Parts: sequence; structure tokens; C-alpha cells
Amino acid sequence: MKIVLDAMGGDFGPGPNVEAAVSAAREFGWEIALVGRQEMIRPLLVQHNTANLHLPIVHASEVIEMSEHPAQAVKTKKNSSMVVGMQMVRNGDADAFVTMGNTGGALAAALFHLGRVKGILRPALSAVFPTAKGWVLLLDVGANADCKPEYLLQFGLMGSIYAERVMGIRNPRVAIISNGEEETKGSELVQQAHQLLRRAPINFIGNAEGRDLPAGNADVFVTDGFTGNVIVKLAEGMGDFIKGMLREEIMRTTKSKLGGLLIKDALERISKRTNYEEIGGAPLLGVDGVVIVGHGRSKARAIRSALMRAAEAVEHSVVDAIETGLEALPKTAVAESRAPSP
Amino acid sequence: MKIVLDAMGGDFGPGPNVEAAVSAAREFGWEIALVGRQEMIRPLLVQHNTANLHLPIVHASEVIEMSEHPAQAVKTKKNSSMVVGMQMVRNGDADAFVTMGNTGGALAAALFHLGRVKGILRPALSAVFPTAKGWVLLLDVGANADCKPEYLLQFGLMGSIYAERVMGIRNPRVAIISNGEEETKGSELVQQAHQLLRRAPINFIGNAEGRDLPAGNADVFVTDGFTGNVIVKLAEGMGDFIKGMLREEIMRTTKSKLGGLLIKDALERISKRTNYEEIGGAPLLGVDGVVIVGHGRSKARAIRSALMRAAEAVEHSVVDAIETGLEALPKTAVAESRAPSP
Repeated sequence: MKIVLDAMGGDFGPGPNVEAAVSAAREFGWEIALVGRQEMIRPLLVQHNTANLHLPIVHASEVIEMSEHPAQAVKTKKNSSMVVGMQMVRNGDADAFVTMGNTGGALAAALFHLGRVKGILRPALSAVFPTAKGWVLLLDVGANADCKPEYLLQFGLMGSIYAERVMGIRNPRVAIISNGEEETKGSELVQQAHQLLRRAPINFIGNAEGRDLPAGNADVFVTDGFTGNVIVKLAEGMGDFIKGMLREEIMRTTKSKLGGLLIKDALERISKRTNYEEIGGAPLLGVDGVVIVGHGRSKARAIRSALMRAAEAVEHSVVDAIETGLEALPKTAVAESRAPSP
Repeated sequence: MKIVLDAMGGDFGPGPNVEAAVSAAREFGWEIALVGRQEMIRPLLVQHNTANLHLPIVHASEVIEMSEHPAQAVKTKKNSSMVVGMQMVRNGDADAFVTMGNTGGALAAALFHLGRVKGILRPALSAVFPTAKGWVLLLDVGANADCKPEYLLQFGLMGSIYAERVMGIRNPRVAIISNGEEETKGSELVQQAHQLLRRAPINFIGNAEGRDLPAGNADVFVTDGFTGNVIVKLAEGMGDFIKGMLREEIMRTTKSKLGGLLIKDALERISKRTNYEEIGGAPLLGVDGVVIVGHGRSKARAIRSALMRAAEAVEHSVVDAIETGLEALPKTAVAESRAPSP
């Protein structure tokens, strides 16, 4: 197993990336290539005991910053850690690429340097979501603001494969997000996609409403990248809002301050149940290689988890499974029009 | 002021509706007509002291149930409380209609029996949303799953007028929900609507992301009915999910159970800050009359608040303001094509 980690990705620079790479290399014996500015990586790496570990540094002089325009940055910064890392996967020099950096940049770099899996119309960004019944997968969360029904069909297939092979969910329930449970509810896009998903060889359980997501009433939630992005950011915001109110109101009186101390363990258990660090990252699905993208605010523990997700996706041949799975999908007008002409 | 209240609306039948009508009639001196099955309403009404109150019963033998197909029910149940109530507003026998019943039914009945304000392309269902900075208005939350940019422009205008006149927010900040802050982010629909809203005579502050909603970073959030519906249901579901986890984890140990007792006041303050009962209902905007729709699970206090919202909308001439406001909107292709032909 050889994973290439974007050592420059994330809000905290190379530090947590190097730490995570050392930890994963030691525990699992993988080779983890650290791509980025060697003058920044090396001094961090020598602080660790790396005897017998496979941790090569691959120098890349440029960095795609969080604030940059993704497609433009990928085009102009040919020696960025993201571009160099993706090229390693394309050339077979690595099995997977992991980054905590600019998500749009990862998408653009993957599209440009890895390309799509044969037959995939659009890749999808996915996200994992904590629910009352464990973690679920949501896609697309931002790669495609405007979708066609056929894209959503493919998202359902890719999500199902990832949930089964990497999240370990047998026969994952796939739902499409809509504004009502009934089959006839939804935008035109959703109604058409519903009909395609119904005929696909996956465990499609129909429409899900917004409330079904935190309730965990499916394992894979399919939606367009606009709605998915709003969902992910709203959920984050709601969490912050409720936590903020709780803190504020508990601090208001001496009695409730004492209560706050006594429920500290309970709050920690909640934090653990919803702790993204255990998951670490979610896949960019539909590109021709394993790419795992994590939060910019990830620390070493989360990055280590993301490396594990990458290894699982490689071991369970997620990319091959997507290519094979595509052949079993119902043929649609758009898919056919994309077939190579004679 | 004469408000007609759907006495049959809501999950708890006429009881809380009658109670709310009595309370509002006594406090504000309004006439509140109770529309519905008189044999059910009268026995409840006589239990209250209604001396000198104006609480006529308007008999309507049918009820549109929560589970019914809205448009069909409105067509077949011509003597339902919802249809009879809307007709009273249309005929000038009442100033406003308030219901806790089937939302889709209220929309269909309003479209059919009140019609749209002249120039309005599509009415919008709105919802109020608790945030870190107070209540905000979100629309559309389900009337129109598929929207055109011109609809969103009109939603922005209507929301701004309601927020200013009924919610008492001076020069309300109007934002459009998108998948990124930058003007260039968004679906095609949102990008086009953004350009229309920018030229409208309202305080348009640009794109908002999902997290801006619970943060209260605008007063009016404009979106299509699909996204709005997902948002409202996701937010409800998130609240339930977090509350459920908190309860579960607090009950796990004796220490945290004691803590739970000590923070009870704090939790009650949170509940008060986010208590929908103080608001009671949100308007169906763009129909030619004041219509306020509340939650099915409303009790008397929430219904009383909804009656207050109706009175405020009447007093501040929200419907007239929408008609006047439309004239100041930038003319668009769709709007022009709707102009009466010579």
C-alpha cells in the first residue's frame, strides 16, 4: 500500500500531516509519500522516530491555498502538492491521494490529472454525516450545482459501492432527498432520477425528507451538489448554534454552571458519537483513482483516519467496482449519447 | 378586524382553536369567526365565558385531513372549513384566514379561491426560523419545487415586505441561499436570480450559505421550494437528533442525571428562545388575501400568536404593499410575457 498525502493541506500546515503519516506508517506498515515543500516537511519529519518506516518526501514547490479559485490554481500551479500528488496516482506511483486542502482544488486536480472513471458523467464529492443510527454518506455535496437525472443515478451507485466496501454496510439503503416522501413529490430532476434509481441494481428505498438524514433513515443519501452543499453547511451551523446556546444558558446561573460540570462526561460522549475525527475524510467518487478529502481543520487523528479510508478504498477496489457497476445500470438517453461514436 | 379561523385545523381538533379564538377575542376585541363543524365547535365554545365577544360560528360540514392530496381535496370538498374560510376572505366577509391544517390544502384553496396578487407569478410558503440573532423568514419552503429566477425575485420582495411590516425589522437584509458566498457561486437558477435581486429595490446582501441561516446573517432567506423544504425539515430533524442525544447521554449516569436537573432552567431558556409558539405561523405570500399557516401540532398559545400575525399583516396592508412593490421590480422576460396582451 502506497498512499500519497498532501503534506501542505489543511489549516495547520504540514505539522499534523507529518504526524499522521508517521503514526499510520508505523501502525500499518504502509508507505506514505509526503508531497509538498521539502524544506518545510523535512525538519518536522526528523523530529519523529522514523526508523524502518517508509516515508519518502516528494518535493512540490507550490501550494494551492484554501482561498484560491480551484480550477485556475490547478492550471497555473503545476508544481503544487495537489497536482503532483494526483499525477503520482495517475502514473501508478501511488495507490491513493489524501488531502485536507482546498476541496474544489482537489476536484479540479483530479478531473484534470486523473480523469473520470469510464462511463462516469460527473464525479461527486461526498460527505459523512453523523446520525441517530451511526454515520451515513451524502453525495453530491458541491461538485455539481446543476445535475441531470443520470448524474444522480450514478451518484446512487457510487455511494452504494463505497458504503458497502468502505463503511462496511451490507446492502446499503440508498434514498434520494426530496420535499416529500411520496414518489410523485420532488423537483422534476428528483422525480426523473427517482425513476432511474428504482430500476438500478441497488437497494433504493425511495424519497427521503430532510428529517430522515439526522434520523439515519438511509445509509446513502443522494442529492445534487447545490442541495447537498446547503445541507452540510446548515447541519454544521445548526450544531454550532445549539452548542452556543447551551453554553450561553448554562453559564448564566451558578446552579446551571454546576450542572454543566456534572454533565461534562455526557457532552463528551455526544462529542465522541459525532466525532468526525474517527472518519477523517470522504471520497471524491467517480474519478479514476482513490481520492479522500478531509476537513481543513483536521488534526493528526483525523488525517490518520482519512489515510485509513484511502487504504480501505484501495483494498476493496472501489474504483474498479464503480466501473463494473456502471455496466449494470439502466441505459439512459444521456449515457447513450456519451458512448463513443463509430 | 375580522379574522376567520379554521376551527378544524391542526392535530388536536377544534379544542385549541376555540380556546385561542376566545383568548384573542377577549384581549384584542377582534371578531373571530370559527369555521368548521358547528356540532363540534358549539359545545366547546359554551364552556368559555364569551359574553361581549364576537365569536360567530360559520358552519362547514367537511374537513381537509392532514393526509389528503391537497389539490384534489380542495376541488371535491367544496364545503370544507378551508374552502369556506378562503371564500369569506375573497368576499370581504373577513380580513384574514388562519389555519393549522394541511399546508398544501391551504395553498391550493388560496390559489383557487383567493387567486394571486396581480403580477405575482407564484405564491410562496414561508417559515420562520430561530437563529442566534432572533427569528428570520425563509421562503419558499414548499409551494414551488421548480422555480424560475423571476419567482425568486418576487419571493425576495414579498419576504422583505413581510419582515419589515409584520416582523418589525427595519430595512431587512435579504439573502439568497447558495452553495458559496461569491456572486459566481450557485446553480444556474441562483446565479440568475442573484442578478435580478441585485437590481431590486430591497436590501439585498447577496448569497448566503447553509450556515448563515442558524447564524442569523440575514433577515430574509430566499430559496426555491425544494431547497427550502429540505432546510426546514433538516433543521427540525437536527434539533430532535441533538435533543435526543443530550437526553440519552444525561440519563446514562447518576452524576449527569443530577447535572441534568441543575441545567433544567437553562434548557427551558433555550426552549423559550426557540419557541415557535411565540410566532405561531407564517404567511402564504403572493395570494390575494392574508393567509397565515401554522404547525399541525399547535396548541392554543401558538394559534393565538398566529391570529396576531394575521392581524398585523392586515393592519400593515401587506397584500397591498406587495402589489405596489411589484411595480418597482426590474422588468424581466417572464414578467413581461405575462403582461396582458392588447
